Amino acid sequence: METIIWKTELREDFSFIEFELPSDLIEPGALQHIGLPREVATRRNLGLVISGRGPVWLYAYLVHLAHPFAWVATFDPRLNGGVVVMNHIVGGPTPGSVVEISSTD
Amino acid sequence: METIIWKTELREDFSFIEFELPSDLIEPGALQHIGLPREVATRRNLGLVISGRGPVWLYAYLVHLAHPFAWVATFDPRLNGGVVVMNHIVGGPTPGSVVEISSTD
Repeated sequence: METIIWKTELREDFSFIEFELPSDLIEPGALQHIGLPREVATRRNLGLVISGRGPVWLYAYLVHLAHPFAWVATFDPRLNGGVVVMNHIVGGPTPGSVVEISSTD
Repeated sequence: METIIWKTELREDFSFIEFELPSDLIEPGALQHIGLPREVATRRNLGLVISGRGPVWLYAYLVHLAHPFAWVATFDPRLNGGVVVMNHIVGGPTPGSVVEISSTD
């Protein structure tokens, strides 16, 4: 069962991960089958920017899973950047700062 | 500066907290001035259900602040319940389960 599809970009300072839901309707029970993409597991010493269209509780769960990362941001299309919501490292971006996500295309 | 207004309900098993933004536009920098309502600080042994209309990154930040609580859910108006996104206690509600929020009116 594919509950979530990940697109992952490994940047120098952070990983950018974008989820896509196979259908618009995701049920809360799906959280039990959802994890972060494998490719980022070895990059917990860096930041993680999460993007995608989905309910608040999906984001909340993903941010919870992302707790071991150096810092975590959620992408805001209006700001075209990742808003930092968690930072565990000295010198890392503070919560409330916006990390620019330049296009790689 | 009032960045967020909290309405708090202390229930038996959890605290229900609902934020209201003074204006529709909240800037990411406001996160530095935002905290959970004081009344729930002594109730970390219980659950916390977060509600309100606001951006994903505000929720992500609040859920991060709520990490010490027994469990955390975000309220989904469509489901009329709190979707559990984090649980730290044995026998607590599992992520993905929905906690019913009955009206107290």
